[in-house]
Amino acid sequence: MPKVKKNTSKFIKRSSKKAGMSPGTLVHVGEQKIDKARITAVNYDQDRLEEKELIRIEDSFAYKDSPPVSWINIDGLHDVELIEKVGTHFNIHSLTLEDIVHTGQRPKVEDFEDYIYLVFKMLKFDETTGHIASEQVSLILGPRYLISFQEAEGDVFNFVRERIRKGRMRIRKSGPDYLAYALIDAVVDHYFLILEKIGEKVEQFEDRLHSEPTPEILQNIHNLKREILYFRKQVWPIREVLNTWQKTESALVQETNKIFISDVYDHTIQVIDTIESFRDIISGMMDLYLSTISNKMNEVMKVLTIIATIFIPLTFVAGIYGMNFKFMPELEWKWSYLVLWILLIVIFLSMLSFFKRKKWL
Amino acid sequence: MPKVKKNTSKFIKRSSKKAGMSPGTLVHVGEQKIDKARITAVNYDQDRLEEKELIRIEDSFAYKDSPPVSWINIDGLHDVELIEKVGTHFNIHSLTLEDIVHTGQRPKVEDFEDYIYLVFKMLKFDETTGHIASEQVSLILGPRYLISFQEAEGDVFNFVRERIRKGRMRIRKSGPDYLAYALIDAVVDHYFLILEKIGEKVEQFEDRLHSEPTPEILQNIHNLKREILYFRKQVWPIREVLNTWQKTESALVQETNKIFISDVYDHTIQVIDTIESFRDIISGMMDLYLSTISNKMNEVMKVLTIIATIFIPLTFVAGIYGMNFKFMPELEWKWSYLVLWILLIVIFLSMLSFFKRKKWL
Amino acid sequence: MPKVKKNTSKFIKRSSKKAGMSPGTLVHVGEQKIDKARITAVNYDQDRLEEKELIRIEDSFAYKDSPPVSWINIDGLHDVELIEKVGTHFNIHSLTLEDIVHTGQRPKVEDFEDYIYLVFKMLKFDETTGHIASEQVSLILGPRYLISFQEAEGDVFNFVRERIRKGRMRIRKSGPDYLAYALIDAVVDHYFLILEKIGEKVEQFEDRLHSEPTPEILQNIHNLKREILYFRKQVWPIREVLNTWQKTESALVQETNKIFISDVYDHTIQVIDTIESFRDIISGMMDLYLSTISNKMNEVMKVLTIIATIFIPLTFVAGIYGMNFKFMPELEWKWSYLVLWILLIVIFLSMLSFFKRKKWL
Amino acid sequence: MPKVKKNTSKFIKRSSKKAGMSPGTLVHVGEQKIDKARITAVNYDQDRLEEKELIRIEDSFAYKDSPPVSWINIDGLHDVELIEKVGTHFNIHSLTLEDIVHTGQRPKVEDFEDYIYLVFKMLKFDETTGHIASEQVSLILGPRYLISFQEAEGDVFNFVRERIRKGRMRIRKSGPDYLAYALIDAVVDHYFLILEKIGEKVEQFEDRLHSEPTPEILQNIHNLKREILYFRKQVWPIREVLNTWQKTESALVQETNKIFISDVYDHTIQVIDTIESFRDIISGMMDLYLSTISNKMNEVMKVLTIIATIFIPLTFVAGIYGMNFKFMPELEWKWSYLVLWILLIVIFLSMLSFFKRKKWL
Amino acid sequence: MPKVKKNTSKFIKRSSKKAGMSPGTLVHVGEQKIDKARITAVNYDQDRLEEKELIRIEDSFAYKDSPPVSWINIDGLHDVELIEKVGTHFNIHSLTLEDIVHTGQRPKVEDFEDYIYLVFKMLKFDETTGHIASEQVSLILGPRYLISFQEAEGDVFNFVRERIRKGRMRIRKSGPDYLAYALIDAVVDHYFLILEKIGEKVEQFEDRLHSEPTPEILQNIHNLKREILYFRKQVWPIREVLNTWQKTESALVQETNKIFISDVYDHTIQVIDTIESFRDIISGMMDLYLSTISNKMNEVMKVLTIIATIFIPLTFVAGIYGMNFKFMPELEWKWSYLVLWILLIVIFLSMLSFFKRKKWL
Repeated sequence: MPKVKKNTSKFIKRSSKKAGMSPGTLVHVGEQKIDKARITAVNYDQDRLEEKELIRIEDSFAYKDSPPVSWINIDGLHDVELIEKVGTHFNIHSLTLEDIVHTGQRPKVEDFEDYIYLVFKMLKFDETTGHIASEQVSLILGPRYLISFQEAEGDVFNFVRERIRKGRMRIRKSGPDYLAYALIDAVVDHYFLILEKIGEKVEQFEDRLHSEPTPEILQNIHNLKREILYFRKQVWPIREVLNTWQKTESALVQETNKIFISDVYDHTIQVIDTIESFRDIISGMMDLYLSTISNKMNEVMKVLTIIATIFIPLTFVAGIYGMNFKFMPELEWKWSYLVLWILLIVIFLSMLSFFKRKKWL
Repeated sequence: MPKVKKNTSKFIKRSSKKAGMSPGTLVHVGEQKIDKARITAVNYDQDRLEEKELIRIEDSFAYKDSPPVSWINIDGLHDVELIEKVGTHFNIHSLTLEDIVHTGQRPKVEDFEDYIYLVFKMLKFDETTGHIASEQVSLILGPRYLISFQEAEGDVFNFVRERIRKGRMRIRKSGPDYLAYALIDAVVDHYFLILEKIGEKVEQFEDRLHSEPTPEILQNIHNLKREILYFRKQVWPIREVLNTWQKTESALVQETNKIFISDVYDHTIQVIDTIESFRDIISGMMDLYLSTISNKMNEVMKVLTIIATIFIPLTFVAGIYGMNFKFMPELEWKWSYLVLWILLIVIFLSMLSFFKRKKWL
Repeated sequence: MPKVKKNTSKFIKRSSKKAGMSPGTLVHVGEQKIDKARITAVNYDQDRLEEKELIRIEDSFAYKDSPPVSWINIDGLHDVELIEKVGTHFNIHSLTLEDIVHTGQRPKVEDFEDYIYLVFKMLKFDETTGHIASEQVSLILGPRYLISFQEAEGDVFNFVRERIRKGRMRIRKSGPDYLAYALIDAVVDHYFLILEKIGEKVEQFEDRLHSEPTPEILQNIHNLKREILYFRKQVWPIREVLNTWQKTESALVQETNKIFISDVYDHTIQVIDTIESFRDIISGMMDLYLSTISNKMNEVMKVLTIIATIFIPLTFVAGIYGMNFKFMPELEWKWSYLVLWILLIVIFLSMLSFFKRKKWL
Repeated sequence: MPKVKKNTSKFIKRSSKKAGMSPGTLVHVGEQKIDKARITAVNYDQDRLEEKELIRIEDSFAYKDSPPVSWINIDGLHDVELIEKVGTHFNIHSLTLEDIVHTGQRPKVEDFEDYIYLVFKMLKFDETTGHIASEQVSLILGPRYLISFQEAEGDVFNFVRERIRKGRMRIRKSGPDYLAYALIDAVVDHYFLILEKIGEKVEQFEDRLHSEPTPEILQNIHNLKREILYFRKQVWPIREVLNTWQKTESALVQETNKIFISDVYDHTIQVIDTIESFRDIISGMMDLYLSTISNKMNEVMKVLTIIATIFIPLTFVAGIYGMNFKFMPELEWKWSYLVLWILLIVIFLSMLSFFKRKKWL
Repeated sequence: MPKVKKNTSKFIKRSSKKAGMSPGTLVHVGEQKIDKARITAVNYDQDRLEEKELIRIEDSFAYKDSPPVSWINIDGLHDVELIEKVGTHFNIHSLTLEDIVHTGQRPKVEDFEDYIYLVFKMLKFDETTGHIASEQVSLILGPRYLISFQEAEGDVFNFVRERIRKGRMRIRKSGPDYLAYALIDAVVDHYFLILEKIGEKVEQFEDRLHSEPTPEILQNIHNLKREILYFRKQVWPIREVLNTWQKTESALVQETNKIFISDVYDHTIQVIDTIESFRDIISGMMDLYLSTISNKMNEVMKVLTIIATIFIPLTFVAGIYGMNFKFMPELEWKWSYLVLWILLIVIFLSMLSFFKRKKWL
């Protein structure tokens, strides 16, 4: 069952191949999700927009100090050498580089004087498997540039890209800190899609819980609970990240943009609130399942008991008169059979009324 | 089952149509609950009271700086253009406008220097469906005006309106901050009505739990639990909102009015306390239900066991003497039948005394 | 079932008749527990003691500024007019007056410069119904006077009254803040009596849980749990109240008396600790009940299974030789019956040994 | 069942005989565990050691100001007069005296300028009854003396006494604050003995849970859980006590000795950690018990079902041919009996294979 | 069952042989895991590396003040005399020495002006027994030296040793604080290996839970839960330790190295997060197990009920016509037998359709 395996192992991503290595050693930990790293650069200000795909990473170095805002996006983390070059040129701490290529990071924000490092998870709900897949996104926010690292080419950032293209938007008038905010906002907005899909599953399972409480539905609920657990684990720390970012005194974040960070912080709280509600609802569903099962069992037992309790005594009576004793006076008497039937019917009816009184019928 | 669906989806209101949009884009998220937005304005001080319904939003602009206190109330959030105009004239931040028309906000207070933005939920308990319906209320508290936004025409604010009309009340002598307090107080007071109705349901379910613990009553308890969950999710953040508001250093809130905020804060704590008590009571009810079911099952099993245990051996004895062996000495003996009856009665009585000793009878 | 109703409704006391009213409107919410409000006044210092019952509230006004310590006690909150007069004369904030007559207050302390307002619950355990009844007590602690408001004439304060009468006690040498402490101490000491009674119930139920785990005892435990929940809800906030009071910087509380507040604070913590222990014990009892039920069911099932498993095969064998086939060689054979008995006994014994091995016997 | 009673009542010790009394009234609450109070005094410094048993409490008064360190130990709290004398001479606050003789104190530390008052519980695990017995210990730490109060003569402090006698130890060179630390350390070290004994019980119960999950073992686990609850209730507050003591700014505690307090604080944390682990383990054991019971029931039901399901249809078939109809063609046919046996065996075998497929066999 | 015993007793390591001893008395508490203590010393700076095994502890004393960085590692804690010598020479507080040889320490950091004392647990997962074994590691971080104490020769530190040997690494350029960090990092990295192994167990048990939910698997899950509990108990305090260390103002830790402590702190948080997720997953598995058992029981009961409910009435009918009454008109009638069969088949089919309607088939 490889799928289940993957499901558990995603809770721990710090692989054994790292243990015992010097900190700052660049080793890509995680799946390689793309063949070749892809580099794109966008350079813009209010009036100008230049967008291109770079073949060599060295082509991006010029953006470090070029006047307006630059956004360098790198898809694919397996090319450790490439990332090392970025690190050297943009003067990035070895621990940051290590975190970028190690896809098991907990969301966090770190303020190195030259740049702010942000790492968090882009999540996707795969409806066929019912699993939440995660992709690590790292942002290096410098004074004039923003470098983003993704595991694979993503479509979540396209919305931001299009807003940049449109011009006239606030994003074109703002610095790289606003761009960083816009990317995180896109990611957090995407979480609401996942919530919606989980919400649909919850409803669907709940409907089926009423109509047919099978063990399969229990297993489904259990699996969903686990995905929610995973979702929660990824989203909780973001709250703290945004709170820290919002309170940063770094010159890299403009005061006027902090209200936007506060806005995405509010959205994160909403996501967390809803996750917690879902947890409560699901644990309620499991209780409901158990009591439904108990109820069904009770009903089954009642049927058995009613039938057995009525017919076992009757059968006994019939058994008595099936005995072959030589001397059994009743057998000879003419009305015996009739009397016996009357007796049986009396027993039957009194049993029925007993069950009626017990409210089993 | 559309009703159940609605019930789950109300936990997430940030719809997918928003994902990927620029922040500050005005899109109404939520149900349209009213045909046409309705605007009313009240302008008052201790001596004077002017109340009118406005046809065009532009008519309200004069109130921005007009000397006494003005309360502009807008029912209906779907008319995005209207709200944009308000925003432009009253100089409201685009994020605030976005929050006003997006009905999935978590209660919060935000201090923009020019105004304080407050958002929270007006709740209603629909007794026929047993669901709690929520309506988002936004308040813009400016130096001389208060603008309130509701999803539909509500009756909760009418109490406040009438107090204003009466004159001589403190509300006529105070500024827009007291008016804001009065509105929130009206909303929180309304929560107590919901608590009462939930309390009635709890009692009702509890009575029925004793008289007839059916699966339906379990389902009802489960649904009520979920509504309480939803209630709690809406009320918890208000506590924080009021606490923040109470500690604000904004000049828009007068020191002498802070005691009133503190009073409504106390009421919120009381609501939360009671919600928590209800949660405990309901989870106790579910435990009680489960043990009642177990008890019933136990009783059913005892009846079955008593009947089966008494009659199965008796039937066996009868079966023995129903055999057709040629050579069975007992069959020939004259007193066999009598002795057998005595034997059967002895077995029967000893079984009974066994169950008596076990306290099953 | 009116009793159960009362039991639930005591968790919410903010009645619907208040909703929509202006804050500061005096409406008595709660049961009227006494016919006519009763006013008593005690005026004392170290050497002098004057105690009288007042007919008109106006007679108490002189005590506001009269030199030694005065304690005005008012039993009965339904006479709103009377309380309004007190409010006017002693200069009490309208919100405080509202809280005094509204018996659904959460315990709290509020520092108005002129006076400190304390509100908390006096609790009584009614042994016949098994319910905890609460009565609201409000204290207005002024510079030279203490006004106490109770719902009915109480006996808890009599201990304090007697201490005052005795003279020579610290209470005669101290100010109204010590008097306030003494009253709260009397109330908290009374909580220990309730704890003792609950403790007795717990023991009693536990004994019965062992001897006869009936559904009634479960219901009793459930009810007790709910009373404890209610008790807890009333006592928890007092902890915070005393903590706040102890840290007050108001001149109305003398530094040297703060150690006494700290003492009653310790007692409150003890009460809370014990309540929490009781909750744990009771939830353990419910678990125990459930497993006892499961155990009993198991035992019942074993008896049924043993009997059925032994006799059903035997009955089958007997049934075989009850058949009427023309050609059944065994029927003719002389020793058949004997052999059959041997066979039956062998089956019986091997079944018994099987159950022995399974440890069911 | 007096033993169980004692067990519950130990959670509340503030007896009803205290309610309504003036604070500071000395009343001994608790069992009298010793006939006559016993007073011993040790006076020592690095070079000198004087140890004697005092007959009259007045003999101890000289130690108040005598130069080196004095330790006065009083066993027995029922002699209220004696304790009052100590209070008067050593200038102890009436609230402290009240706490000393009232054995229901929650562990606490209180800093009165002249002295520090420490109260905590010495615990003992009585292996025969399985109960934890507690004894209250109070310490009055003055500038040159330490007065300790115990309920009965204890052996825990003997270790400290011997260390003092040995000379050359740090205790002889240090002041009364170190002595106080040494006494508490002895008490906390003793908690580890209780943990060990509880640990043994846990193992023992766990072993028996596997071999024979009887209701008795469940009851034992339940009782142990309650003792752990009681243990926890006594130890938790000590953590806070030591933390407060460690941070005291009182001149009565030397800076260099604070590291020792910190050490015993660490031990307390360890005790608490282990208690929490035991709670988790025990609650896991109760779950395990419940599922074991369910498993057993399942097994019982399977046996019943297999036997009943196989033989009931067979008995029916036999019953058919036991009927006495005149016209039953099968009865006449020669091979009927043989065919019937084949039929019965086929039914039997197909039933068996059905159960095999269901994995019930 | 010695294995289970060891399992419980590892939760408490403060043995009874310590109780009553003076603090600072060196007694080795724990298993002796090595025959003779082994001492190695490494002395290095950027250019130079000297590594040797010392025979006498006195040979290490020179490193106390020798210019570059020295790392003295001592394997084996039972040689109390040796450790006392280290203590005397390196000027270590007696409480620290006591903690070093007492293997029941809770992870902690203590700042003595001359040195920082760090103690934590190295953990190993023994796959054959399924238990987590722990080994205590103490670090004494001085200005120029680091002394590490282990219970046995370990391989976890070898990775660090090799990094030192390699030269050119950051470790060779940094002081003993970086070395201390490197050792802790190695230990924490090792925790991820344990997480992986636990993760494998979880998956394995989950697979088996689906295929065959036996009591053994329940027991396994229970045991794993307990190991996770133990793991958690060891790792939780490390979080606090690292947090304290990171914020130290001691000159012994360089500001530039604090980012590394922060990095290992992040890893600890990740470990804790995953442990918490595992706890949730495992408790979900136990719920799943219980409901699976209930489901199975339900299925068993249904089979029994169906068979019994169908055949008991049929057998009764057959019993009726097995009676030997003289006068039973049906017996004589020619078509009786045929009609009876039709009757039986009708009963049979209507029972079947009843069960179909109930969805039991």
